[in-house]
Amino acid sequence: MSEFPAGFEDLWSRPLIGHLATVRPDGAPAVTPMWFLWDGEWLCFTHTTSRAKLRNIEHQPWIAFSVNDPDKPHRYIQARCVVAHIDADPDGAFYESLQRRYSWPTATTQQDSSDRVVIRARPMAYSSQNR
Amino acid sequence: MSEFPAGFEDLWSRPLIGHLATVRPDGAPAVTPMWFLWDGEWLCFTHTTSRAKLRNIEHQPWIAFSVNDPDKPHRYIQARCVVAHIDADPDGAFYESLQRRYSWPTATTQQDSSDRVVIRARPMAYSSQNR
Repeated sequence: MSEFPAGFEDLWSRPLIGHLATVRPDGAPAVTPMWFLWDGEWLCFTHTTSRAKLRNIEHQPWIAFSVNDPDKPHRYIQARCVVAHIDADPDGAFYESLQRRYSWPTATTQQDSSDRVVIRARPMAYSSQNR
Repeated sequence: MSEFPAGFEDLWSRPLIGHLATVRPDGAPAVTPMWFLWDGEWLCFTHTTSRAKLRNIEHQPWIAFSVNDPDKPHRYIQARCVVAHIDADPDGAFYESLQRRYSWPTATTQQDSSDRVVIRARPMAYSSQNR
C-alpha cells in the first residue's frame, strides 16, 4: 500500500466529479463520472443494486478512481482501490448526504432508495501528476 | 456496435481532458486523464512505449473512455472501444498536433519522441447522460 501523495488532499476534499473505472465480467473496462466522499479511511460511492457497475464490482473488487482539477485539468490523482464493503442505504441517507455535498437539487423524490447501496473502497496504490 | 448518442458531439470535438480506463495484466483497472482526438473514425491517443498503460492495452485491447462537460460535469459520454492500431510516432508529429489542440507549451524539447506511439481505438458501445 503506497502513501497518499502530498499536495493532492484538496482533490479529495472538494466536491469534484471523479471517474470510476471497473472491470466487467467479460474482462473489458468501464468508466463513468461519479460523486464520491473520502471519509479519511474509505472512498465512498453511492450506487444502486440494479446497475452494471455493481455487478462489475462483485465480480472484480479492484477499482480505479481518477480525480482531476477543473482549474488545472492536467493535475490529477489516481487511486487503485479494493472494494471492501457494499452496504444497504435503505433510507437513502448516504445518497442524500452526497446530494448536499454536490449541491444537487433535492426537490424530486428519491425513487430508488430501496436499491441504494454505499460502496466503500480502500485505496491501495496512488499515482499523481502536478502540472 | 451502438450509435453515437445525438447531442454529445461537442464533448468529442472540444479539447477536453477525458479519462481513459485500461485493464492491467493482473485484472485490476487503471484510469488516468488523457488528451485525445476523435478523427471521425478513431479515438486517437498519444503515448509512449515505456509506460504501463501500453502494456495494459497490449494485454487487453478493450478500453473505456469517459469525457464529461466541465461546464456541466454530470453530462458525459462513455465509449467502450477496442484498440486496433498502435503505430510509431517517431517524429512526434501526432504528439505535437495534440500539444497544439490543447494549447500546451511547446518550448521544451520533446524528449521521448523515439518512444512515442499513436493509439487508435474503435468505439464499439456508448453510454451517456445529459443532466
